[in-house]
Amino acid sequence: MTKVVITGGAGFLGSRLARELLAAGTLEVAGGGPSEISRLVLADRVPAPADLAGDARVASVVGDLADGGEPGDRAEAAVALAEADVVFHLAAAVSGECEADFDLGLRANVQATQVLLQSLREAGTNPLVVFASSVAVFGVSAEHPLPDFVDDHTAPNPQSSYGAQKVICEQLLADYSRKGFLRGRAIRLVTISVRPGKPNAAATGFLSGIIREPLAGLRATCPVQPDTEVALASPDRAISGLLSAASAPDELWGDHSPVNLPGLTTTVAEMVAALGRVAGPDAASLIDWVADAAVARLVRSWPARFRSERAARLGLAADPDFDTIIRAHLAEVRQ
Amino acid sequence: MTKVVITGGAGFLGSRLARELLAAGTLEVAGGGPSEISRLVLADRVPAPADLAGDARVASVVGDLADGGEPGDRAEAAVALAEADVVFHLAAAVSGECEADFDLGLRANVQATQVLLQSLREAGTNPLVVFASSVAVFGVSAEHPLPDFVDDHTAPNPQSSYGAQKVICEQLLADYSRKGFLRGRAIRLVTISVRPGKPNAAATGFLSGIIREPLAGLRATCPVQPDTEVALASPDRAISGLLSAASAPDELWGDHSPVNLPGLTTTVAEMVAALGRVAGPDAASLIDWVADAAVARLVRSWPARFRSERAARLGLAADPDFDTIIRAHLAEVRQ
Repeated sequence: MTKVVITGGAGFLGSRLARELLAAGTLEVAGGGPSEISRLVLADRVPAPADLAGDARVASVVGDLADGGEPGDRAEAAVALAEADVVFHLAAAVSGECEADFDLGLRANVQATQVLLQSLREAGTNPLVVFASSVAVFGVSAEHPLPDFVDDHTAPNPQSSYGAQKVICEQLLADYSRKGFLRGRAIRLVTISVRPGKPNAAATGFLSGIIREPLAGLRATCPVQPDTEVALASPDRAISGLLSAASAPDELWGDHSPVNLPGLTTTVAEMVAALGRVAGPDAASLIDWVADAAVARLVRSWPARFRSERAARLGLAADPDFDTIIRAHLAEVRQ
Repeated sequence: MTKVVITGGAGFLGSRLARELLAAGTLEVAGGGPSEISRLVLADRVPAPADLAGDARVASVVGDLADGGEPGDRAEAAVALAEADVVFHLAAAVSGECEADFDLGLRANVQATQVLLQSLREAGTNPLVVFASSVAVFGVSAEHPLPDFVDDHTAPNPQSSYGAQKVICEQLLADYSRKGFLRGRAIRLVTISVRPGKPNAAATGFLSGIIREPLAGLRATCPVQPDTEVALASPDRAISGLLSAASAPDELWGDHSPVNLPGLTTTVAEMVAALGRVAGPDAASLIDWVADAAVARLVRSWPARFRSERAARLGLAADPDFDTIIRAHLAEVRQ
């Protein structure tokens, strides 16, 4: 019997992970064989979606991780964390928000993670903690030109508050793990595309929007040049990464340092060409090209070519091509 | 006219830096030409040494940076920080303390730095902030074997809480700098030897003790094997690094990423041989070799070979050899 907590459990990735876990009914924890999921706590600032909240195994805990929420929720969250065998820590302010509001990023990303790790340490139950980090930890700057590819040894060099905060959380997680307070595993996600639903405040949001909106007959704005190179993963591949991070035996996972999720390297122009192939030329004509220097600066600072050897060892691979990603997205929204 | 604050200003490195600054009377700030030092505030948990406190330019502010100290001191510290043109942030709990007391490290290193940076941001005066980081950010682990040498592109991989906390502070400093809240410069110091004075709680303290104590006719304990390779800098070279970090023009310093101080690569056996050459065979016989697995683990996790190209660009070089370091130490203690 396994008790799971997902922070950010009401968000896009958290609720998708929750659905996957509930459908499977079991989770393998660090190579220990499949174990029945007896409890799934979705902790977020907003209540869990109705389909999830309706599952008898699910509890929705509403509150702000950085301060533990309202007294009632705080107690509920504390109990959930103290009982958890596995915590997926996905709650975060996204890149665009953190650039716009420095204090929000420090609070929602750094302080909330500090509070979470300290709670788990105090519980003394040594849970497995999967942390959704980001390849936004990497970046190009005057002293650190673009590498040919990013591998598991590439030094973080964040050029955004979001990326800096992810590095800080990785370091905290690794040190709590090294000290034996918990078993942390950080996996750096690449940009997810195609994200279903509404646009969010991530600087990379347009990498879903320029596909999602035209497919729905809506106009979308692309703030970067067509030749901009990016690394992407479908929602399915991101979820696979998070699940592998929970399931891999220690010897396969490796040490306390983070693992880079593989990414499909493509360009915005290639994405739009794939959109045309899948949905016809009319879809691509719904994109308005309106340059945004701030977004372009962020996106250009992120390397797009990866060699993710540790992820490959875990059986994780990049999506085969962007056409496949679009078709999977279409199949999903048409359900 | 330049106003300077040194956190940890009553410590070994802080008070040595203060003496150097007071003797020079001027400090060049980011290539702006020598400027007279009108005020030097030494902020620490203990009062500044008498020789410093007696200088009319010096103010000693006593308090805990992490909470700003007592109300009176807090106001004094806040005024000092708000008026500072240059802040040398040296205050820290050392490696051995942080391994022994996890909460102390988080408080004295991470939280204190957060409070300091936030104060400087709120002051809105855009001071130059030199942060004494450490090559303890580097480390060897299962997934990250020892590199042939550490250069400015090597990824941090700390194997100690102290090292992890230094990475976190580097990231905070770089992001505050990128946002334009202050002008941060992080310089990673290597182990300083020979440190004068009493032993401290750094895991590397013995690298001074095995020289300093025998020279004073006292016994000293060496907790690692003689073939242990280490990177060292004399106190003078460490101070030169800190001063260069304050003085270099922006274009020479580079971007917001940290600079590694050059280190003299040697072994404990070579250090003891140098002690014999400088002070005679009797001195070396005062060393007791008593293995300490915890200290050995930490020290072995730290790379000892560096190629510090950015530091070389700043005119910083490693000490020529350990004999020279011992002779300089002897000359000083005999004054």
